[in-house]
Amino acid sequence: MYIPTLADMLVAHERIKPHVHRTPVLTSRFLNELTGAELFFKCENLQKAGAFKARGASNAVFGLTDAQAARGVATHSSGNHGTCLSYAAGRRGIPCTVVMPRTAPQAKKDAVRGYGGRVVECEPSTSSREAVFAEVVAETGAEFVHPYNDHRVIAGQGTCSKELIEQVGNLQAVVAPIGGGGMVSGTCLTLSNLAPGVKVYAAEPEQADDAARSFRAGHIIADDAPETVADGLKVPLKELTWHFVKTHVTDILTATEDEIIEAMKLIWKRLKIVMEPSSAVPLATILKNPQVFAGARVGVIITGGNVDLDKLPWLRG
Amino acid sequence: MYIPTLADMLVAHERIKPHVHRTPVLTSRFLNELTGAELFFKCENLQKAGAFKARGASNAVFGLTDAQAARGVATHSSGNHGTCLSYAAGRRGIPCTVVMPRTAPQAKKDAVRGYGGRVVECEPSTSSREAVFAEVVAETGAEFVHPYNDHRVIAGQGTCSKELIEQVGNLQAVVAPIGGGGMVSGTCLTLSNLAPGVKVYAAEPEQADDAARSFRAGHIIADDAPETVADGLKVPLKELTWHFVKTHVTDILTATEDEIIEAMKLIWKRLKIVMEPSSAVPLATILKNPQVFAGARVGVIITGGNVDLDKLPWLRG
Repeated sequence: MYIPTLADMLVAHERIKPHVHRTPVLTSRFLNELTGAELFFKCENLQKAGAFKARGASNAVFGLTDAQAARGVATHSSGNHGTCLSYAAGRRGIPCTVVMPRTAPQAKKDAVRGYGGRVVECEPSTSSREAVFAEVVAETGAEFVHPYNDHRVIAGQGTCSKELIEQVGNLQAVVAPIGGGGMVSGTCLTLSNLAPGVKVYAAEPEQADDAARSFRAGHIIADDAPETVADGLKVPLKELTWHFVKTHVTDILTATEDEIIEAMKLIWKRLKIVMEPSSAVPLATILKNPQVFAGARVGVIITGGNVDLDKLPWLRG
Repeated sequence: MYIPTLADMLVAHERIKPHVHRTPVLTSRFLNELTGAELFFKCENLQKAGAFKARGASNAVFGLTDAQAARGVATHSSGNHGTCLSYAAGRRGIPCTVVMPRTAPQAKKDAVRGYGGRVVECEPSTSSREAVFAEVVAETGAEFVHPYNDHRVIAGQGTCSKELIEQVGNLQAVVAPIGGGGMVSGTCLTLSNLAPGVKVYAAEPEQADDAARSFRAGHIIADDAPETVADGLKVPLKELTWHFVKTHVTDILTATEDEIIEAMKLIWKRLKIVMEPSSAVPLATILKNPQVFAGARVGVIITGGNVDLDKLPWLRG
């Protein structure tokens, strides 16, 4: 297992600069007063392809040799990683195949295709996904880019908090959502090297709290198909992300579904941005644990903005 | 009638800098391909108090002498100007009174109060509004800050396009929504002086096209209570804004209600920002008139983000 280094992250940042936005940081006096902290929202919902995953995917794609690149890239993902890998492959002009359950939302399939990628459908089971994915790789020789358990991806995600500290200076803490742990790992990689005084908190839905339980147990716990509105956060930790979580994370905080939805609406209303339920979990945990963040300058990672505008969670039922 | 000058706008920009955001400019490859133009969205929905009107209101409030300021400011508005004037007055720590029909949305009243302003209700008629407003001024001696027919307000709004050209450089055109014409007048003021080659287009709902008809007729035409989803654009031109419109605007383009709603959803989806129907009218007119903007670098003013998240126009019916 290769652990990515500060140098890898710095190389990644130079490599991906032409392909990703240096996203803005937004603030809100109202939310500062509400939380008792000074919050700096790093808006990766405004990133290319609508998610921070454009960083890691671009680093993987543009780091390939020409020979590797000619065979293309492949992944399995029904979320932002598939879209972002297709985006990055499109920028380099190489093939991209995304294996996705046939039951995945049409909008997700369209998004992959919109950037020029190919969708190959599998049945909605792990065994079918693995079998179909193996076929794709055997046929194409494509390079597998895992959504998060990949050192190139983690080095890419680490560029987000590098920009954040360049943009806002000294912070006491950064809070990022945790699913598989790619963003949290990248954040740990960067901050433990460039700003070791900054605490890293991970924020997780109570209904998909496998990372929080892993953190307390001291080993990876993976749940089978948890249900949460924060659909980007259902996947489990893997070896590489677990390394960063256990080594550098200060704590993992959780929030209920209602708290996540309320925080999401609050961000839409006050920051005037469209973002996913997953991205609201950090604010939900800050609101729930004011004593942890009181008076602190806190970075909050808004991870993505790909949400179905016809099905907003506060309008359900 | 005093016509504000370039110098007034430059003074305004220095004066309001501590009180407003230099808002980001967003771009979207998808929207560029869709329109055939290169679009630069100036995001005043991310402005303080959620609208560009924080600029003009701040310029008026912070330009008062101490003696004037002590008596406070007043206006009549059931929209963003009331909220923004309350915001600016709150920053200076002076009283602000906003006269508003008792039928105005509770959220608008709450927004004024949230920044420390006082709401005085009138009946929903012009005569009642004028009578109640006269009483307020007689009682308080407050300085009237009109939502748009005010040289201080127009000079303040002009700072938006100054920032835009500083941020993105050379443009061929700027498109801004037109209601009373405050933003369009400020845009004309700034661009006619600092970048006279840039054409200014105004964008208006077909169902509230009084400015477009005024433009063609050569004199102000005011409609009585037009109905449109773009509720910030129902008010008529006045002398001062008419001066800028007739002198510097290249054309006024209109869009239907459906076109406005479609453009709004497109911006939410692709730019990941929360903005008002009024702010979608420019993109709607660009989509409708591709030949006008083909191949051009075009600034698009996203004027505000204060929208009811429980009543999104594409979810109606």
